[in-house]
Amino acid sequence: MNIFDDIIKGSLREDAPNGDITTEYTVSEDETVSGSFVAKADGVICGLALIARTFELTGGIVSVDLKFNDGDNVKKGDIIAFIKGNAHTILLGERTILNLIQRASGIATMTRATAFQVKDFKAKITDTRKTMPMLRVLDKYAVRVGGGYNHRFCLSDGVLIKDNHIKAAGSVTDAVLRAKEKAPHTIKVEVEVESLAMLNEAIEAGADIVMLDNMSNELMKEAVKIAAGRVLLEASGNMGEKNLRSVAETGVDIISIGALTHSVKALDISLKLD
Amino acid sequence: MNIFDDIIKGSLREDAPNGDITTEYTVSEDETVSGSFVAKADGVICGLALIARTFELTGGIVSVDLKFNDGDNVKKGDIIAFIKGNAHTILLGERTILNLIQRASGIATMTRATAFQVKDFKAKITDTRKTMPMLRVLDKYAVRVGGGYNHRFCLSDGVLIKDNHIKAAGSVTDAVLRAKEKAPHTIKVEVEVESLAMLNEAIEAGADIVMLDNMSNELMKEAVKIAAGRVLLEASGNMGEKNLRSVAETGVDIISIGALTHSVKALDISLKLD
Amino acid sequence: MNIFDDIIKGSLREDAPNGDITTEYTVSEDETVSGSFVAKADGVICGLALIARTFELTGGIVSVDLKFNDGDNVKKGDIIAFIKGNAHTILLGERTILNLIQRASGIATMTRATAFQVKDFKAKITDTRKTMPMLRVLDKYAVRVGGGYNHRFCLSDGVLIKDNHIKAAGSVTDAVLRAKEKAPHTIKVEVEVESLAMLNEAIEAGADIVMLDNMSNELMKEAVKIAAGRVLLEASGNMGEKNLRSVAETGVDIISIGALTHSVKALDISLKLD
Amino acid sequence: MNIFDDIIKGSLREDAPNGDITTEYTVSEDETVSGSFVAKADGVICGLALIARTFELTGGIVSVDLKFNDGDNVKKGDIIAFIKGNAHTILLGERTILNLIQRASGIATMTRATAFQVKDFKAKITDTRKTMPMLRVLDKYAVRVGGGYNHRFCLSDGVLIKDNHIKAAGSVTDAVLRAKEKAPHTIKVEVEVESLAMLNEAIEAGADIVMLDNMSNELMKEAVKIAAGRVLLEASGNMGEKNLRSVAETGVDIISIGALTHSVKALDISLKLD
Amino acid sequence: MNIFDDIIKGSLREDAPNGDITTEYTVSEDETVSGSFVAKADGVICGLALIARTFELTGGIVSVDLKFNDGDNVKKGDIIAFIKGNAHTILLGERTILNLIQRASGIATMTRATAFQVKDFKAKITDTRKTMPMLRVLDKYAVRVGGGYNHRFCLSDGVLIKDNHIKAAGSVTDAVLRAKEKAPHTIKVEVEVESLAMLNEAIEAGADIVMLDNMSNELMKEAVKIAAGRVLLEASGNMGEKNLRSVAETGVDIISIGALTHSVKALDISLKLD
Amino acid sequence: MNIFDDIIKGSLREDAPNGDITTEYTVSEDETVSGSFVAKADGVICGLALIARTFELTGGIVSVDLKFNDGDNVKKGDIIAFIKGNAHTILLGERTILNLIQRASGIATMTRATAFQVKDFKAKITDTRKTMPMLRVLDKYAVRVGGGYNHRFCLSDGVLIKDNHIKAAGSVTDAVLRAKEKAPHTIKVEVEVESLAMLNEAIEAGADIVMLDNMSNELMKEAVKIAAGRVLLEASGNMGEKNLRSVAETGVDIISIGALTHSVKALDISLKLD
Repeated sequence: MNIFDDIIKGSLREDAPNGDITTEYTVSEDETVSGSFVAKADGVICGLALIARTFELTGGIVSVDLKFNDGDNVKKGDIIAFIKGNAHTILLGERTILNLIQRASGIATMTRATAFQVKDFKAKITDTRKTMPMLRVLDKYAVRVGGGYNHRFCLSDGVLIKDNHIKAAGSVTDAVLRAKEKAPHTIKVEVEVESLAMLNEAIEAGADIVMLDNMSNELMKEAVKIAAGRVLLEASGNMGEKNLRSVAETGVDIISIGALTHSVKALDISLKLD
Repeated sequence: MNIFDDIIKGSLREDAPNGDITTEYTVSEDETVSGSFVAKADGVICGLALIARTFELTGGIVSVDLKFNDGDNVKKGDIIAFIKGNAHTILLGERTILNLIQRASGIATMTRATAFQVKDFKAKITDTRKTMPMLRVLDKYAVRVGGGYNHRFCLSDGVLIKDNHIKAAGSVTDAVLRAKEKAPHTIKVEVEVESLAMLNEAIEAGADIVMLDNMSNELMKEAVKIAAGRVLLEASGNMGEKNLRSVAETGVDIISIGALTHSVKALDISLKLD
Repeated sequence: MNIFDDIIKGSLREDAPNGDITTEYTVSEDETVSGSFVAKADGVICGLALIARTFELTGGIVSVDLKFNDGDNVKKGDIIAFIKGNAHTILLGERTILNLIQRASGIATMTRATAFQVKDFKAKITDTRKTMPMLRVLDKYAVRVGGGYNHRFCLSDGVLIKDNHIKAAGSVTDAVLRAKEKAPHTIKVEVEVESLAMLNEAIEAGADIVMLDNMSNELMKEAVKIAAGRVLLEASGNMGEKNLRSVAETGVDIISIGALTHSVKALDISLKLD
Repeated sequence: MNIFDDIIKGSLREDAPNGDITTEYTVSEDETVSGSFVAKADGVICGLALIARTFELTGGIVSVDLKFNDGDNVKKGDIIAFIKGNAHTILLGERTILNLIQRASGIATMTRATAFQVKDFKAKITDTRKTMPMLRVLDKYAVRVGGGYNHRFCLSDGVLIKDNHIKAAGSVTDAVLRAKEKAPHTIKVEVEVESLAMLNEAIEAGADIVMLDNMSNELMKEAVKIAAGRVLLEASGNMGEKNLRSVAETGVDIISIGALTHSVKALDISLKLD
Repeated sequence: MNIFDDIIKGSLREDAPNGDITTEYTVSEDETVSGSFVAKADGVICGLALIARTFELTGGIVSVDLKFNDGDNVKKGDIIAFIKGNAHTILLGERTILNLIQRASGIATMTRATAFQVKDFKAKITDTRKTMPMLRVLDKYAVRVGGGYNHRFCLSDGVLIKDNHIKAAGSVTDAVLRAKEKAPHTIKVEVEVESLAMLNEAIEAGADIVMLDNMSNELMKEAVKIAAGRVLLEASGNMGEKNLRSVAETGVDIISIGALTHSVKALDISLKLD
Repeated sequence: MNIFDDIIKGSLREDAPNGDITTEYTVSEDETVSGSFVAKADGVICGLALIARTFELTGGIVSVDLKFNDGDNVKKGDIIAFIKGNAHTILLGERTILNLIQRASGIATMTRATAFQVKDFKAKITDTRKTMPMLRVLDKYAVRVGGGYNHRFCLSDGVLIKDNHIKAAGSVTDAVLRAKEKAPHTIKVEVEVESLAMLNEAIEAGADIVMLDNMSNELMKEAVKIAAGRVLLEASGNMGEKNLRSVAETGVDIISIGALTHSVKALDISLKLD
């Protein structure tokens, strides 16, 4: 679970740079407690491995007995995990764990609901780069757990040609050709377009993926016809509950949704100590 | 603005560990662009200093002309800031800036709306430790900008005696006395109670603040009478739009709300390049 | 003991960035040695947990058998701990351990002696922010072990209004009111005053603590009468052996002493290998 | 002055992880102040470059007008430097600067006094590795400024064969030969001996430096005769005011003194704001 | 040039953790020198931006007048850049700069020579992950400057299914299908195959790229016919001077060469001070 | 093996910042594999401890059964180590391990071959500071394993007076005297000279080591006569296969060779999984 270690360490350092003074004043160092993480709302649980890893990184010994796996649906009242161990360790790690798995589960829950809406279509739901700074690896993991897919991770590992790149390069064609020439052969070249003319130009130039930016469903249907499988089509821009199904009906391959990670409703989870 | 530097650097490192390849392929290194950050929804703007600082930390030169101050209300369509400078720098910093100020503004917006609901009462709205890991200093700043107040920053700088501390110490009295004896004289001692009996015991023992955990409004009114100004009273637990005003009416001093920072709706802001 | 890890790691990195070359040249990698940490002067021992943790962080295996607990008085010649394990590990960690526990024990020793002088009075002895950079968490721990108390940890978690803040705010009253309004409710507001008039103003404005800066004992006695328990009074400024008892006699609540941590006489301790 | 940057940054991070809240509450962001660093005791000033560098690293603009150079003697009341600039920056950096230059000046002051005692002899005064963790580069700089000399910086850049290395290697001769064979040709090989027999063996084996550990002055005089310039002789062990001159009279080349850095009396310096 | 900052800082920290003592002992702090970087062999120059950036990061002021651009051919004796500035800064940064640009130029030189051999064919020359740890971003930049192309940057941003993945998944088909299903739509799926049967299976399953591992030229010609443009074909395994042209003649799209970065002959460059 | 931890961690972070996506998509988390590291060319093996340590630092469990020790000669086809453990861990650490031990073994191999050429002479072969940034501790270890010796580690722990230092100081004599006066007594003073006159001056001034920069063999023979054992003589500058033996014949003590580490041919090693 190493890819989450930086997040856990950063969180613990922030929350207890000089220890947990309340616990130090009132609880003896060898006190043992047990308890359980409990869902206080229905949703998709995500990030369970963070529980044991956080306690481990605080240096104490806590046994963790998970009752669910990442991606399982939990109901309000479900016990997610039993824990038992050193009281100082548990009280120190509690908030870090809850802050992280509540967010991750919130993302997974929203992603599953979103994906469910378009389950009858081929369109895949993906995230964007609108994630919480320094938490991207967890945010994107939660999207996958919820049944969504990941877009590029960052600016360094994907090519997405936008308006400004096109202006600077001179034309869609020039921008795509440059990127096709220079990009690692392992990466696809994506272009954001605002019209069908631009779509045509992008396809001609050899783009692999075309992002349809804030297009009407009618235009997108046209785009699907034009593309005819030659490129992947990604719908983007204010995709929400109301229009999601109709967008999927247009036949696009991908629908990317920033709200999956930029406006997360945490799944309510609490730690009840016995 | 140094206190936000770690956040900005962490975000840039995450988003462009090996540069912005699309821009490198398509835009020349000395290209200049101008543009503006635009509000796409009404709200309270927050985090404006991050714009200039992020560009500065990427190493490029970008002039930033702010049209608002943190805490100002913005309307959909308002231009928040004009920028002009190196295209590579602007495209590199764009997402980091937006991710951060959208969140901060979302928090400030929600906090102001929340504080407005209780403006006729003495109760202060505060945040909690349910913030985004590694972003706490920004989250708590946004709460202040929105007109809220901060609770303790972390486990190391505040004493909050909860159920488990009381059990371990033996009684409310013992826990409070220990904390009063050991805590720096600059810190107040807060105790979470679940009954009026516990409240009385806490006051007798010398607590400075008492958190009323998930109490009914009736009980809280009683608590206010009992406390009679001898301790600060903090209402906590599922404070939401529906009950907030009635809670404030009980006469408590503080209402702490985790949702201000754990479930943030980002304020929609975009960067429009000319 | 996680809160000391950064100190230990920083010290080891400084002392052996590229290993211990003498030991590498002369001692085989699997050599085992035993020995004991011995007090070479009387004092209060402090920082014992650093012994095992330092060896652990160097990656080797060393058993540590402690003969004292933090806060115990040791006499010259006392064996503090027996150790046994890999010679490379022990020789690598030796200086880091000694540098740290000699300082911590020196602080604890001086603090106990200082606290002893005022044991007949209510005044608590506290530290200040005059600690060694990057070692504050250890310095302040040692003060507590020695029977002293901690002042605020840093600029971020305590309010201490000094001369300049007062000038900038306009008056004691203005400064205190602003701080009372803005500070987290968990933190007390302290003001440094130079006269009884300022003391009166601070109390009226609602300060929680008043620091009496370099006042004569006579003035401090007056201050105690004026305060009458409404605020905590802290005596500060050149508190030393000669005047400490007389200061305590004035009835102040707190005496803060920078010398506890800015001018530390290390307690002599050595590692004797068998 | 880059070699001190890690120390300054570490200190600022420790002292104001989330800003200086008192100043934020009471002083406006663009307030300017001026003031001066003043010596409150006689001594050798050291670390002056840290003043400007600390303010620079906090991000604010402060002009610094130094009135002395490192190594100058200052008298109680002397103004060391005038400063003028942003109030927030100055109040933020004040304690970090004072903690560092008070220590550095304390070390320089004690070193000069110590070196003065042996000025009629060839013996050089050196420090040891008994420095404050993470501050070694500053501690050793202060020793040089005070007129002392540095011993090896750390375990990685000097060879000092002690008792345990000799035991592990089998004999003084074996240990020295191994080290001479393996050490970089740029480093001298030093051996700690407890008798004249060991001294003879060390010289025969080709040691470059011999440390005379806790030897009587009589024995050291013998050692000087035996060595006859073939090796450098270092006196070590409880070198203090009383015996220093007599040790130097023995004719040793080096006298190393741990107390220069392990038990530092800070030179009292304060920042007086106008 | 921020993407190289971690490399420069890491190098300076390694080379001068406590300053450049020789220069401190012999050169005054305000001494100015000028000089020039000179090619001592023919090759392709690369990494020129590191010169100014290294001096900048050491904190001193040095003017740099570049006479070439990255990718230019230089001849033995050519002056690459004139520099002038603080002597301490220049002597401190010299080795870091030379170590880095000699390596980068060595890579660019070898890459250009390699690419030249296959210039009559469509095959692109790419690097691999056989780069120097922590220098990958520079190594891969140098490959591009030399006229080569980059393969995936790391394990996190490319899919390359090898033998073991196939075994674990059950078959080429299963492995490809899983990867196609799960991978971000922005990334192509590559499979390493050892036979034409596997190639066929990979194409059928929808692979985007097929790596032909250590295949004979005859087999590769067959592979090119089979692929018929449906997938990119990458030749891999002991590509060297002798066989490179003949491999390119087979018609493969990509030839990846580990030796470009794992066995680099530094281009000889020196700094001549006037 | 802690001194290599920063290298391993840096490499893993670079190679898999967000995990190994191919393996995640195709291999189950509890899959176990076994395999062996195999030499694919003859050479000197070096860095074997990195195998187990890398797997340990990835967090997984892998048993490693080494068949050789660092410094052993291996032949093409030799199995260097058997490994068995978690597939994810092994695939994650594979490239880091290979990149590092291939380089270290390449250095050790070249060093041994070089040292062999001068085995009949007293001259020791040493490295220089022309190592790979951030890998110096490994590069220099490999030189030792190959039978070479280390020159100073960095600018902070050795004195090497070059042309510019001499100019700045005024003369060879002045530079040497300053360095002798100021340098720690544990460090030798080395001077680079270009003529016999300078050599004489350096010896007179008390230098410990003299570097003969690009001198002819004839001059070096003269230098050896002049030095007559009073200083160590180091030959430097374009030492290669052709002239190495003849340089050693001149009688110099040390021959330093940058190419040992600046132009490394990796020893071919692969991991074959069963």
